[in-house]
Amino acid sequence: MERSQELSVGRIPIVNVQPSLEEGRWPARAVVAEAVPVTATIFREGHDAEGATLVVTDPSGKQHTMPMPQDDWGNSLYKAVFIPTHEGMHSFRVEAWSDPVGSWVHAAEVKIHAGVDVQLMLAEGVDVLTRARDTVRRGAASKQHLTDAIAALTDGKLAPEARLEAALSDQVRQTLAKAPLREWVTTSAEYPLLVQREKALVSAWYEIFPRSEGAKQDKKTGEWTSGTFATAAKRLPAIADMGFDVVYLTPIHPIGSTHRKGRNNALEAASGDPGSPYAIGSEDGGHDALHPDLGTMRSFKNFVTHARDLGLEVALDVALNASPNHPWLDEHPEWFTTRADGTIAYAENPPKKYQDIYPFNFDNDPEGVYHAWRGVFKTWIDAGVTLFRIDNPHTKPLTFWERLLKDIAQERPDVIFLAEAFTRPAMMHTLAKIGFHQSYTYFTWRQTAEEMGEYLEELAGESSFYMRPNFWPTTHDILTPDMQRGGPPYWKMRAALAATGAPSYGIYTGYEFVESVARPGVEEQIDNEKYEYKPRDWSKADEHGMQTLLTTLNSLRSDHVALRRLRGLTVHRTTNPNILCFTRHVPANESPKGRADTVVVVASFDPHAINDAIVTLDMSAISKEDDDPIHVLDAITGATYTWGREFFVRLDPSQTLVHVATVRP
Amino acid sequence: MERSQELSVGRIPIVNVQPSLEEGRWPARAVVAEAVPVTATIFREGHDAEGATLVVTDPSGKQHTMPMPQDDWGNSLYKAVFIPTHEGMHSFRVEAWSDPVGSWVHAAEVKIHAGVDVQLMLAEGVDVLTRARDTVRRGAASKQHLTDAIAALTDGKLAPEARLEAALSDQVRQTLAKAPLREWVTTSAEYPLLVQREKALVSAWYEIFPRSEGAKQDKKTGEWTSGTFATAAKRLPAIADMGFDVVYLTPIHPIGSTHRKGRNNALEAASGDPGSPYAIGSEDGGHDALHPDLGTMRSFKNFVTHARDLGLEVALDVALNASPNHPWLDEHPEWFTTRADGTIAYAENPPKKYQDIYPFNFDNDPEGVYHAWRGVFKTWIDAGVTLFRIDNPHTKPLTFWERLLKDIAQERPDVIFLAEAFTRPAMMHTLAKIGFHQSYTYFTWRQTAEEMGEYLEELAGESSFYMRPNFWPTTHDILTPDMQRGGPPYWKMRAALAATGAPSYGIYTGYEFVESVARPGVEEQIDNEKYEYKPRDWSKADEHGMQTLLTTLNSLRSDHVALRRLRGLTVHRTTNPNILCFTRHVPANESPKGRADTVVVVASFDPHAINDAIVTLDMSAISKEDDDPIHVLDAITGATYTWGREFFVRLDPSQTLVHVATVRP
Repeated sequence: MERSQELSVGRIPIVNVQPSLEEGRWPARAVVAEAVPVTATIFREGHDAEGATLVVTDPSGKQHTMPMPQDDWGNSLYKAVFIPTHEGMHSFRVEAWSDPVGSWVHAAEVKIHAGVDVQLMLAEGVDVLTRARDTVRRGAASKQHLTDAIAALTDGKLAPEARLEAALSDQVRQTLAKAPLREWVTTSAEYPLLVQREKALVSAWYEIFPRSEGAKQDKKTGEWTSGTFATAAKRLPAIADMGFDVVYLTPIHPIGSTHRKGRNNALEAASGDPGSPYAIGSEDGGHDALHPDLGTMRSFKNFVTHARDLGLEVALDVALNASPNHPWLDEHPEWFTTRADGTIAYAENPPKKYQDIYPFNFDNDPEGVYHAWRGVFKTWIDAGVTLFRIDNPHTKPLTFWERLLKDIAQERPDVIFLAEAFTRPAMMHTLAKIGFHQSYTYFTWRQTAEEMGEYLEELAGESSFYMRPNFWPTTHDILTPDMQRGGPPYWKMRAALAATGAPSYGIYTGYEFVESVARPGVEEQIDNEKYEYKPRDWSKADEHGMQTLLTTLNSLRSDHVALRRLRGLTVHRTTNPNILCFTRHVPANESPKGRADTVVVVASFDPHAINDAIVTLDMSAISKEDDDPIHVLDAITGATYTWGREFFVRLDPSQTLVHVATVRP
Repeated sequence: MERSQELSVGRIPIVNVQPSLEEGRWPARAVVAEAVPVTATIFREGHDAEGATLVVTDPSGKQHTMPMPQDDWGNSLYKAVFIPTHEGMHSFRVEAWSDPVGSWVHAAEVKIHAGVDVQLMLAEGVDVLTRARDTVRRGAASKQHLTDAIAALTDGKLAPEARLEAALSDQVRQTLAKAPLREWVTTSAEYPLLVQREKALVSAWYEIFPRSEGAKQDKKTGEWTSGTFATAAKRLPAIADMGFDVVYLTPIHPIGSTHRKGRNNALEAASGDPGSPYAIGSEDGGHDALHPDLGTMRSFKNFVTHARDLGLEVALDVALNASPNHPWLDEHPEWFTTRADGTIAYAENPPKKYQDIYPFNFDNDPEGVYHAWRGVFKTWIDAGVTLFRIDNPHTKPLTFWERLLKDIAQERPDVIFLAEAFTRPAMMHTLAKIGFHQSYTYFTWRQTAEEMGEYLEELAGESSFYMRPNFWPTTHDILTPDMQRGGPPYWKMRAALAATGAPSYGIYTGYEFVESVARPGVEEQIDNEKYEYKPRDWSKADEHGMQTLLTTLNSLRSDHVALRRLRGLTVHRTTNPNILCFTRHVPANESPKGRADTVVVVASFDPHAINDAIVTLDMSAISKEDDDPIHVLDAITGATYTWGREFFVRLDPSQTLVHVATVRP
């Protein structure tokens, strides 16, 4: 990565072009129809005018040119918004240039008004507009506007100010803005921008353990019969009806028997315990095989087809670990780590041992192990899987992921990877930079209004150009203390925050029932579905109104582009530390329908008491004036309110802890 | 500046290497003996250990390798400090690597202590230490330490814990730290670092108008006789005695007569008015000529030699403008701008006109005008000038400066350029990035303790790797309202802040007399020396104690490395908004003498009342523990104090508004 020392400042300097990840080391990311603000710091010597142009090259090599107006004088910031229409690798550059027309307009307006150098100003106008007409490629109409302007400047019948006014008609200004006279054009570096399909940013996941759906216990013998792809498929219509668009399956492969965990993570499994689906591999096969209880490849493909017909894509959970019975342990011991005593290393966090899990070694035979995994992913992609939830990607080399994700994207750029890494920020951010499309986040652990507000703003900031959060209020692994205690109103609030705080979110099945009892000493559910069958009585799914709520939230997400974008989030001041208010906003020029879209979310983090607050909105963040009224409809309660820059809210847990208020135009 | 798309993450990822300006677009800057902290974000998959190395390549091509330990676990930050010993273009890279010894040490310490896998851990230790011994180049002693360690691990006479302890002796750890076993070495990009002489960072300027020094008025006729280089040279010993090391001369060239300004900026000069030295050029010559009143080139060179003998370098003020009488207007009209009416454009800020100044055009004949200026600078460099103060560099193209400064540095890297640009941040920062060694700043306009504290921290931050501030409490152009009203105690405080707040500062002559009366309506001195002769009675120079103060400050700066560095500044909390406290600190390992150096500055911004405050020091910023006492000597009052984390100060304008307290070891 050696860089040239010949680089230098240009005639019209351009610095700090954004978005860029280490000046183009990795591409910035966007999805089709997502507005990409491109900014650069541009300035020049002295008092003459400069201008800027954004040039985007699309994957076909076609160049798209757009004006890049000044956005912030003090910071010398120029900005243009590019909205991609096609997937694929784009690139963009910024061009800065001397603007002789602008310099003349400024001087002429001041001096002619002051009666200074009037004839000189008119003569210089003729010069510069003639150059603008004759040296810039333009159509006949555009040429004619400039010819008329030049004629006006020399029209002896008019007073000088009238000549200038005629020469600077709106039409002439528009003509010049569209095709400006650009001198000393200076070009920035070329920055990569990878455009992906919209689902890479916007998705609503619903997680199930397929074996639980339709699992049955014999009342006499106590013996369980596993659910299958066929029985699990019966759950799909309800998931689709709620408005989810991804059904995510925990691992579906054969499960090891050696050191199998029993219910509630018992070290010894009892007879009939199905084992954790994350302990992958048995005599029935490894990561490219199906657990025989679930069905055949044909029934899996039927499941996928059925889901697809309902508008649901299938996400598969991939944990790159082996159970002691995984076929590769014998076939390819070089894909694991052999210790000094000749044994194969299991997972450890010294002195703790996890003898049911063997981590892979990616360095002994990098090509072999890479192609084995590439094959596993191909198997499932060929079977119709279009999303993967990767378990603990941060415990595998990043070189492996970067190669794999690039490789798969070459053939199947539609395939989406979600990184399940809860670790230090550098790793989480770099996983996103090297290609993961979505990332689990710390959302679940942000437990106060202030923490949540800061985190939402952070995620909507600089990292939004590469890291796309996926918010989960619970998972099969996570049940935070607040969720253990908060009760249904709190669960509803957290679901609403997840669904509106980020363009992607996910719900772990059973959320409908507020399954909030933890196994003592750990922050996960008691009787965890990881270790046992857990069929649920879906006829009671709406007893807390949760099914209705989720349906409402998904419907809002589909109606409101503001909820399908990551940038455009603003946290507003409230007078109560328990109450968070944020807005999501897409201005008219960035909205597919050409209409601004705004959603106001107000949430109380206190499930035990009534809280009220005065909220003060930063009105400029939602393209409003300070004294504009805001007419809103709260999708949670159905109530309408007229709010304004300041408004009062009262959140009563017996009613609702959250408003999700859409702003009427 | 197109970048490769092949760049990717490495086996042990390295991101965000600093210092770098746009990933190496321009070199970061340092001076000889200045500590350069190099940081990088480095992390890896899983739980195994990683390590890092900094590799600096000096101008001779020699590589210097130094360990780069972890500095901040949560942010995955590694840091090494490089202290250059030679001038010239260096480069550096970061190497990150897998640390199998570190991984083993961690596991062995935990597991052997817990009695788990004891024999395995000992066996793995033998393996890894054998690799460390045999595969890394090391001397005989180093090899023997590792052989002893391996023997200890297999010593059946010792208990396992004792074997481990023997194997991990301090000696073995040092041996391994010095020459670690590095696997999967990953290399960052190569980043440029330009090392310059110390004066580029550290300098004390004293500005004079040479014509004033020794100027005499005939009492009968009222006629003035100009001072000369010979008479001005008589002032040099006093300037040197105060401890300044740069004498800066306002322009010394012939002055135009057309549109000459009179006293107090009168539009018409009276007979005998000498004119502004910034209106350069007459029949006597232009920028490469000397004003005949001042003397010949020989007398100028004598002045330079005399200064040099006293330890003073000479800085020349270069204003790239022409008076209407500049010879180049006739010889090279293409170096100026011709308007549509055939006239040459003078300076304007429409509708205001500055008919005494003609700006250059750098675009009509870029090669011609460039070489003309290159010649001007060569003339003065050949005459012994080693610093230039560039008047308004931001009104000339940055391409011009970048080329000129690179060009001059090729032959004379010792020549230093100070940018006098008071404008928007983007321009000021980019002037520094492209090669200006020092920059005027907003110091003068930071008029509250809070503003000043924020500004000091800003300048000591990220931009310290390229922008070196030069602080001026006044100049011939600047007399801020606070300086007009503050009186001598306030002037002393501002001088002390300038001298201690940045490694470079400057004093405009006459500061000794607190010349604080402004011309009505403008923020500059009445009877401004720009437009008239202004001899001063130096026998009274210490009537306010200012000469003593300046001498004290310069002596402190020369004794304390902490005052000669830009980084290492910390602003501390005080209970009074009028009182600023900051420290400058160089830790022992970054200090040329190997001793930590700390200076505490406390200043009151209120010249009209007694102010007191409790100061709370961030003790970690000065390498102290919270309960350490701090014994200080205040250089301003000569008083000694014993301070600590919290201390009380009272600043009485009748005594002093500032303490500059050096910390005794």
